Amino acid sequence: MTLTIDLNADIGEGFGPGPRGEDDYSLINLITSTSVACGLHSGDPTIMKRTCALAADQGVTIGAQVGYPELAGFGNRRIDYNEQELTADVLYQIAALDGIARSVGVAVAFVRPHGALCDKAAANEREAMAVVEAVVQYDKSLTVLAPCSSTLLRCAVDAGLPVAAEGYPDRGYTPAGTKIATGEPGACIAGFGPTADRAVLMATDRVVEATDGTVVPLTVQSLRVHGDTLTAVAFALCVRNALAAAGVELAPFTPGRTS
Amino acid sequence: MTLTIDLNADIGEGFGPGPRGEDDYSLINLITSTSVACGLHSGDPTIMKRTCALAADQGVTIGAQVGYPELAGFGNRRIDYNEQELTADVLYQIAALDGIARSVGVAVAFVRPHGALCDKAAANEREAMAVVEAVVQYDKSLTVLAPCSSTLLRCAVDAGLPVAAEGYPDRGYTPAGTKIATGEPGACIAGFGPTADRAVLMATDRVVEATDGTVVPLTVQSLRVHGDTLTAVAFALCVRNALAAAGVELAPFTPGRTS
Amino acid sequence: MTLTIDLNADIGEGFGPGPRGEDDYSLINLITSTSVACGLHSGDPTIMKRTCALAADQGVTIGAQVGYPELAGFGNRRIDYNEQELTADVLYQIAALDGIARSVGVAVAFVRPHGALCDKAAANEREAMAVVEAVVQYDKSLTVLAPCSSTLLRCAVDAGLPVAAEGYPDRGYTPAGTKIATGEPGACIAGFGPTADRAVLMATDRVVEATDGTVVPLTVQSLRVHGDTLTAVAFALCVRNALAAAGVELAPFTPGRTS
Amino acid sequence: MTLTIDLNADIGEGFGPGPRGEDDYSLINLITSTSVACGLHSGDPTIMKRTCALAADQGVTIGAQVGYPELAGFGNRRIDYNEQELTADVLYQIAALDGIARSVGVAVAFVRPHGALCDKAAANEREAMAVVEAVVQYDKSLTVLAPCSSTLLRCAVDAGLPVAAEGYPDRGYTPAGTKIATGEPGACIAGFGPTADRAVLMATDRVVEATDGTVVPLTVQSLRVHGDTLTAVAFALCVRNALAAAGVELAPFTPGRTS
Repeated sequence: MTLTIDLNADIGEGFGPGPRGEDDYSLINLITSTSVACGLHSGDPTIMKRTCALAADQGVTIGAQVGYPELAGFGNRRIDYNEQELTADVLYQIAALDGIARSVGVAVAFVRPHGALCDKAAANEREAMAVVEAVVQYDKSLTVLAPCSSTLLRCAVDAGLPVAAEGYPDRGYTPAGTKIATGEPGACIAGFGPTADRAVLMATDRVVEATDGTVVPLTVQSLRVHGDTLTAVAFALCVRNALAAAGVELAPFTPGRTS
Repeated sequence: MTLTIDLNADIGEGFGPGPRGEDDYSLINLITSTSVACGLHSGDPTIMKRTCALAADQGVTIGAQVGYPELAGFGNRRIDYNEQELTADVLYQIAALDGIARSVGVAVAFVRPHGALCDKAAANEREAMAVVEAVVQYDKSLTVLAPCSSTLLRCAVDAGLPVAAEGYPDRGYTPAGTKIATGEPGACIAGFGPTADRAVLMATDRVVEATDGTVVPLTVQSLRVHGDTLTAVAFALCVRNALAAAGVELAPFTPGRTS
Repeated sequence: MTLTIDLNADIGEGFGPGPRGEDDYSLINLITSTSVACGLHSGDPTIMKRTCALAADQGVTIGAQVGYPELAGFGNRRIDYNEQELTADVLYQIAALDGIARSVGVAVAFVRPHGALCDKAAANEREAMAVVEAVVQYDKSLTVLAPCSSTLLRCAVDAGLPVAAEGYPDRGYTPAGTKIATGEPGACIAGFGPTADRAVLMATDRVVEATDGTVVPLTVQSLRVHGDTLTAVAFALCVRNALAAAGVELAPFTPGRTS
Repeated sequence: MTLTIDLNADIGEGFGPGPRGEDDYSLINLITSTSVACGLHSGDPTIMKRTCALAADQGVTIGAQVGYPELAGFGNRRIDYNEQELTADVLYQIAALDGIARSVGVAVAFVRPHGALCDKAAANEREAMAVVEAVVQYDKSLTVLAPCSSTLLRCAVDAGLPVAAEGYPDRGYTPAGTKIATGEPGACIAGFGPTADRAVLMATDRVVEATDGTVVPLTVQSLRVHGDTLTAVAFALCVRNALAAAGVELAPFTPGRTS
């Protein structure tokens, strides 16, 4: 039986015109799913539409990359938020992107929190439930893409939503199978080669080597490659080639939708 | 036969917390349609959701009040805009509000440009077509609410969209039946009494007295009362009472939608 | 010897045009110091300039009301922030307001954190030091206005900055002399009368009655009355009258500056 | 006598974190003046501070790059603006940047409008005077950097402000010596070589070849190289080398300031 896995990256993370996003045209060819910023932490309607059209052309599944309304920090600052307000903000983002996606013949198929919201929803029931509630209110058939072993993943399952677990080949993991927080020692894996090796192990043996050297199980349906770095294209290509060499086929964790 | 007309006002024009919007709870009881700001010139997802819930409770028809992305000027500054970008921005706003409206059991039924976008789309084919294109891309059954005799109204009709014409009882009119621009002499009608009288004449005789004293025909399906002034409630109540005294019944120009 | 105290309120908390701020013209006559929002959580350059001109006319001392860059939540959401970035943001706000104040012949005389930043800097050394650092970098002769017994007050003193302590007559206090956090039981004092009584006790006996009924010492140089409620003017007038009846004179805690 | 000219570019045009601005560390070494975005159309306080520190290290003169408050369009959309509001916005930007510059030991020495505001102030007295008024209100010793033959240049001279004229080696010129508007035929000069040749002619012979082939006089004190393209560094280096080969020395049109 052929092993398959999804490769996801953020596309369309600019705001306003500028060089950000020049790589999108190359990166979109290398991945199977993309989560698209929805205008609150990044992304504007014109970029969103261009990205949806690119994804539609390439058959890449589209997800809503929902975040805190904070352009200045790119959604990377943790904000204390009333749950109802957070649900409203997430719902707003999903709906706005879905409307734009439908104007180019596709539709949002999954939801993925971004940055600080991803971190908070991974660890705290409060934020996890606020995100889940927004998805439930919008469309219960949307898949929630969340870190494996996260509170968000569990809450989404409990709410009856389809889910997919995400692995980070360029990030360190604790022996408990959770990602090392940004800024902590061991958070980043240096080098394309070692990162690609980890991607292959996640896809084939469903394991990751933790910071203490132990090999821990990790079942993920999607591997994340970053879209917001200057080396995003080279990195994605490297991971993709390594997966191909290991006989792993790429396929989206959930099929793209049409409007 | 009973004469009917729609009374519309903006509800939910704040951004963030604050006293703005305190009147909404009273104003919503006095009108039959409301256009709701969608987060770019005013409104945030929490206010949008509260407003949609208020409108749902009262059976008031909801429209998307779409504007330029310009909080600092409340959408009242004219911006030169690429048409495709404007269409994307308008589409984003309609979709975001519709998603939020559907989460409380209703849906967007019409689209109304706000402020400077309203003025530009009323006069110029470029902006009018950009707005119409967004509505066509989102849902061709949505009604466009536009000033009577405006370019936007004509473009929407040409595109096969349902339309409704809007009259402004508190605004001066030229002999050609168009609203005097803000800031020009005669732009504003002073006093609740004279304004209410004009509202009645628009609803019953389908005319308005122009600045030169001539009485010109004006066929409108909706009368606009402002929602963003300190006297909004008192003004709406005065117009409503005058219409009732004249035997005019209030009814939305298009029925509210449910999700 | 005559007792004196400062009465401070926020003026100019709108963003863009709208009814917010209508009360400013009355409120400015009732207070001796005002902290002015600087455009990141509220306030825009036009409102800032109008407010500075009002304050200049009335001889009211101007302070920079610095907050998190978060219009949607009015600066009331707690944000995790890198200290250097926070210092840069605070510095930006002080400088922008000071430039605008100087264009109308006055200048910023004090700095007061707003909302969530006030709460964080009151309790945490991290945020307190980031604010203090910004003041030190801009002008060491500016006074820091902070809650009494707060970490911010202590850090400002340690850095050699002039300080003033602020009391909240409409807020509950713990037996330790600290304000009850918003949303906690006992956080708000109901009624203008009881609030005015507390204001008088703070100004005369330098005490406050805590939630457990004990009377605790509280030395403050400024009493805060809110500027962002519909009853702001009535409330400020009530406190002012009560202070006058008790023989307390109003005077700014630091003199206004001219450019 | 040695010929000298200034080379200016925008540095620090990002907003929030991201790859934008990676080139700044190289570009700053190649130029003699930089105009820094002030947070309304681009730039945030952290980027502004980093850029001022870079410029201070390299002895590069700092100017305030003032623009419309419009992040989504990067200040490139023309906005109809009340003059007083525009003056307030420009003043806010100059003051904010100057405060940040002073925290790292330097100060703003000139003001340059950006994007759509540059275009409008170059052609219209209304916007030109609003910008000039802001400079006059802030500091009459600041130099205004404006396109040669522009209305802004003339208004600044009339107001007694120091001025410098700017030439665009990569832009086409009319026989009247004005820049061809963006988007018009002939607006852009293709190729680094031809552009560098034009830069040399502007610096040495003080002429430019217009679109009709005529050679017209053009007296400029500063040559602009773009900072917001992926090839900004290579382009600036090419122009710099060509000027050096022609014996032109680089020097800022106005000396950098210290706080």
